[in-house]
Amino acid sequence: MSPKGIAILGSGIFAKEAHLPAVAALNSGVAELKAIYSRSEKSATELATAAQQSLNLNEPPSVYHDADPNANIDALLARPDIAAVIIALPITIQPSIVRKALAAGKHVLSEKPVAPDVASGIELINEYNTTYKPKGLIWRIAENFEIEPAYQTAAKMVRGGKVGKVGFFNARVVGYVAKDNKYYNTPWRTIPDYQGGFLLDGGVHTVAALRVLLPGTMVSLSGYASLNQPHLAPHDTINATIQTTDGSHGLVELTFGSPVPSRSTLANSGITVTGSEGWISIVNASNADGKGVLRITVRTVTKDEKGRDNGETEEVIEEEVRGVKVEVASFLDAINGSDDGFGEPLGALKDVAFIQAALNSNGAPVDLVKLVQQ
Amino acid sequence: MSPKGIAILGSGIFAKEAHLPAVAALNSGVAELKAIYSRSEKSATELATAAQQSLNLNEPPSVYHDADPNANIDALLARPDIAAVIIALPITIQPSIVRKALAAGKHVLSEKPVAPDVASGIELINEYNTTYKPKGLIWRIAENFEIEPAYQTAAKMVRGGKVGKVGFFNARVVGYVAKDNKYYNTPWRTIPDYQGGFLLDGGVHTVAALRVLLPGTMVSLSGYASLNQPHLAPHDTINATIQTTDGSHGLVELTFGSPVPSRSTLANSGITVTGSEGWISIVNASNADGKGVLRITVRTVTKDEKGRDNGETEEVIEEEVRGVKVEVASFLDAINGSDDGFGEPLGALKDVAFIQAALNSNGAPVDLVKLVQQ
Repeated sequence: MSPKGIAILGSGIFAKEAHLPAVAALNSGVAELKAIYSRSEKSATELATAAQQSLNLNEPPSVYHDADPNANIDALLARPDIAAVIIALPITIQPSIVRKALAAGKHVLSEKPVAPDVASGIELINEYNTTYKPKGLIWRIAENFEIEPAYQTAAKMVRGGKVGKVGFFNARVVGYVAKDNKYYNTPWRTIPDYQGGFLLDGGVHTVAALRVLLPGTMVSLSGYASLNQPHLAPHDTINATIQTTDGSHGLVELTFGSPVPSRSTLANSGITVTGSEGWISIVNASNADGKGVLRITVRTVTKDEKGRDNGETEEVIEEEVRGVKVEVASFLDAINGSDDGFGEPLGALKDVAFIQAALNSNGAPVDLVKLVQQ
Repeated sequence: MSPKGIAILGSGIFAKEAHLPAVAALNSGVAELKAIYSRSEKSATELATAAQQSLNLNEPPSVYHDADPNANIDALLARPDIAAVIIALPITIQPSIVRKALAAGKHVLSEKPVAPDVASGIELINEYNTTYKPKGLIWRIAENFEIEPAYQTAAKMVRGGKVGKVGFFNARVVGYVAKDNKYYNTPWRTIPDYQGGFLLDGGVHTVAALRVLLPGTMVSLSGYASLNQPHLAPHDTINATIQTTDGSHGLVELTFGSPVPSRSTLANSGITVTGSEGWISIVNASNADGKGVLRITVRTVTKDEKGRDNGETEEVIEEEVRGVKVEVASFLDAINGSDDGFGEPLGALKDVAFIQAALNSNGAPVDLVKLVQQ
């Protein structure tokens, strides 16, 4: 099979720090990065230069940007040698670019969230299902937590009954966003034109991890949202309680509104799932080489010959954080006919629905299943 | 003032390990322990013997029990030399004994919860307010977390604005109750005839601490309850989200349903309250002498001359756990005309209402204010 021609649309922090290395990590001969698009020429050129270096190319990928009508996004999408695009653009811009790319016959991997809100997500998904999927086009959402090997490993354990019947769970993400935070200083994040601010942008990851881990489907959410640090408007904090189809329930605490760094560093952020026979925790950590890992710890009850509890066992698994690499490789595999089912837009829509529900619940239960069926 | 004659009604674990030492810690001349009542003679005699020793008495307090009609609880309450009783009896028995004691003209300090459910609590409180309070009788609920110096210290800081405007809070208690746990083996706790089991019995403490700490009144609760360890029926776990009158919100996780001890020891149980300018945490710990303390840590933002965040300060305060001692002393003070307002039955009723709401919410918001006005 000849390498697929691909392009990266967007040249922000994540395109540079995550997507480009993921493309560089692809097996040789799988893809050829042919073009970079950004609204600004400067930014696109910078990423193209970085790409030439990291991909060891003879010349940089072609640069497309809004100022040149002969080298704008439409020109890029008109190229027959580009089969697929990776989109990492501002949240509210993405849906229109996804549409454009699909209409141009490109396979698409677009960054989460699938859309800024549930209604526009449903619209886009319906359009894809009706018009583009039948043509064999792949559209996936880059939800790296969903495909992250650590969550997949933990999910297999939990769903396989390792901790017994799941009873309750807990997800906590406590962030501190200083005014000089690099993500905060992306203009579209400083004054977001979408619900939830960082809660939508970052929160969907945690929801995706829960979606993967829990044997039951999250069906009802009651919660509260608030703004605690004015520079993070409209909201920076969600507290919610959730019920799943198997009767388990949990608490989700998402906040980027820490008043000081210690509120984040000492928060013991992470996920726990507790069952009748044990519990599992998944936390961010560093391994001996200083590499970012997700550390899974499973502790399960042991019994004596009469069936009485007499202790517990502990198992620790560390998985290097590599979800973006895996998702880009998996996207290329899907284009080449080997689809493992990750990155389904409907899954990503459920993550947006969760955040939207939490932002609007004000204590009342929101039916998460109905919400994505609007 | 001559010492008040007092009696302890109940001779279980808490009467022995907490109330007796609290009586022993009273200033000399404040009270004289004259009698012990228990349903069983053996148990009452044991506590009387322990009391003689720890209070350094010439003879043990008189023993009253159910088998002897001349030395039963009515005989005890008929004694004119006994002015006040401390009641630590099974949850469902207490209200009738509180009534009996008040009717006999005794001041009463009765263990939390004020009643097994909100309705019976309201009934009892109304009866007290109508019939006994006008006679000058004191009735207090022994809710030691409410009066615990650490929570009072932390409350002063939070309510005084130390962490800025309170935005969100978190209370987590994760317990492991083995089948050989000493409290679990109190017969009335093994098969409880009241809602919530340990969640009512122990959970009201955490709710009381929040009630003291938060500047806003907790007005709405949405949550879920479940049973994860069958020996703890009817319920062992609550997950709830709460809103207060000042718009702050929080999460409460109460569980005694840990499948293994590590789920409890590694849970980072405790309370945090986060405001716009800092946060406070209160956790159980041991001090240098190995004594049980509550450790309060307050961290607040510091600003440069232009008002920009430039760091944070940390303040740690450790308070010896001594709520029961303080509450017994305060009860005697109140009898002697110096009432500091602690132990109000209505406060304790709110704690029961919280647990009852969490057990019955099933995700729907419960109005906590209305619930205590039934």
